[in-house]
Amino acid sequence: LEANSTARSTPGTISCPICLDSYGEIVDSGRLVVSTKCGHLFCSQCLRDSLSESHTCPTCRKRLTHKQYHPIYI
Amino acid sequence: LEANSTARSTPGTISCPICLDSYGEIVDSGRLVVSTKCGHLFCSQCLRDSLSESHTCPTCRKRLTHKQYHPIYI
Ligand SMILES: [Zn+2]
Ligand SMILES: [Zn+2]
Ligand SMILES: [Zn+2]
Ligand SMILES: [Zn+2]
Repeated sequence: LEANSTARSTPGTISCPICLDSYGEIVDSGRLVVSTKCGHLFCSQCLRDSLSESHTCPTCRKRLTHKQYHPIYI
Repeated sequence: LEANSTARSTPGTISCPICLDSYGEIVDSGRLVVSTKCGHLFCSQCLRDSLSESHTCPTCRKRLTHKQYHPIYI
C-alpha cells in the first residue's frame, strides 16, 4: 500500500491517502479527519475499516489501536 | 485568545492559530505541525511556549501536558 506517496499531493493540504478524498469531500460527507498517535492522517471511515483488518497504521505500520487516534479540527 | 477563529483562514489548509504562519512557513523554518490530543493544531514552537505558561490547550482550554501532543506528517 503506497499510502504515503499518494498523500503528498499538495503540501499543507489534507486528503485521505486511502480513498484520496480531499478535506472538503471528507467533511461534506460527514466524515472526520483523524490523526493517529504516530501522526498520520486519514478520513475516519478508511481508518476504521483498516483497523478492523489490522491493528497497524496504514502509512507507517506502527501498532495502532482504536484508542490511539483522534479527530483533528482544522 | 481568539485562536480558533483566526485559524480558519482556508478550510483544509493548515496554519498555526497563534503565530498565523502557514504550513509552508512552519516547515521551512524547521518547526513541526503538531496536534494536541483534543485535535487542535499548532506549530511546535508556539505550543511549546504556551505550555510553559499554562497546561491547557490554547484553543479549547482542555488540560494538556507535554505528553499529550504529537507531530503530524502531511
Ligand atoms: Zn479515506
Ligand atoms: Zn503511522
Ligand atoms: Zn505558531
Ligand atoms: Zn484543544
